[in-house]
Amino acid sequence: EARGCDVLYAELYTMKLSATLSALSELIGKPVTLLHRGDLEDRSSIIVEEANAKRVGILVGGDCLSATTHISLVLEAKQKAVETRIIHGSSIFSAIAETGLSIYKFGKTVTMPFPDKGSPDTVLRGIEENLSYGLHTLVLLDLDNEKNTYMAAPYAVQGLIDAGMRPDTLVVAVARLGRPGSIIRAGKAQEVASLDLGEPPHSLVFPGSLHF
Amino acid sequence: EARGCDVLYAELYTMKLSATLSALSELIGKPVTLLHRGDLEDRSSIIVEEANAKRVGILVGGDCLSATTHISLVLEAKQKAVETRIIHGSSIFSAIAETGLSIYKFGKTVTMPFPDKGSPDTVLRGIEENLSYGLHTLVLLDLDNEKNTYMAAPYAVQGLIDAGMRPDTLVVAVARLGRPGSIIRAGKAQEVASLDLGEPPHSLVFPGSLHF
Repeated sequence: EARGCDVLYAELYTMKLSATLSALSELIGKPVTLLHRGDLEDRSSIIVEEANAKRVGILVGGDCLSATTHISLVLEAKQKAVETRIIHGSSIFSAIAETGLSIYKFGKTVTMPFPDKGSPDTVLRGIEENLSYGLHTLVLLDLDNEKNTYMAAPYAVQGLIDAGMRPDTLVVAVARLGRPGSIIRAGKAQEVASLDLGEPPHSLVFPGSLHF
Repeated sequence: EARGCDVLYAELYTMKLSATLSALSELIGKPVTLLHRGDLEDRSSIIVEEANAKRVGILVGGDCLSATTHISLVLEAKQKAVETRIIHGSSIFSAIAETGLSIYKFGKTVTMPFPDKGSPDTVLRGIEENLSYGLHTLVLLDLDNEKNTYMAAPYAVQGLIDAGMRPDTLVVAVARLGRPGSIIRAGKAQEVASLDLGEPPHSLVFPGSLHF
């Protein structure tokens, strides 16, 4: 599908990808231009204008509409009557079923922020709310792709313990889900806080009720 | 990846696929054997044994671990020390973001059963529970692939109204999401109940709080 485009952009800043830009270009057989943080927000109208005349493809990691930026772009295109086509990819939101926890039983998803960007209170409250209905909670971990900084699962769990989570809370940590060498580890929070799970991306799941 | 397998099976009975078996075989360039309902459950040990000696690929629609049958198969393989590799696909669980509703704000998912298989009460209760936390509810619709019968969204909405849902409840109906010619329609339940959305598969979303 990408091969049929006149112009190709890649948006790699909302996730940690194992693919590089040159590997993408080689695979597709066409040059791919990297978008920087904010390009899709600040320069969206330029891209939509371009798509008026040409077939413009934007490659993103994961499923393309999980991030609000991409939904905004589609809306802007629709407003300007520029035709869009969405090709869904695989996503942590369904891949998390690899933990063995039923995808039907997940409640609201929350993101654990870096300390300078927010408090873990929202995360604790989200887990508690879901738990009160017996639902599992997927906790996504903050990242700063331009600084090449990704929150590790053990670091996040320690942050939650420091914010008041019981150290014996059951937690499942996953690393590199859907890629070769992925890891899934369940244990008490205090144990998971001292694991080494290797390269990012990592995520956490706090199971709700495990009985049916 | 499928091309590298010695034996290929396709499991098409848990969803409505637009692809046919012969189209799959042609695309991959290898014969693909169709699995019938129950094959993965009743004859799983035969398939796992076969995978001991050969590279066996099982093609499924959607993301491969959203159905419990597939998780059971992976567990059985692990118990018998047969190596598995999971390749995640795109799924309604993240594609539903195309409605514009944040994927972070979905609660528990429920399935609307055919009248002879269950009551819509679980669906009503699931929507209500999610709503009490301001969360959206994805409602998947029952199907019987061997009988080529798929529940349509308007039929499901009428069933929910008959079971006591208020006719002015806001609902979003989607049809063929992620495929060409997909449709997304929002409206009051009583309006959606009389829409013609065309071919399956259909799904419903009952929005929770739309304010942040």
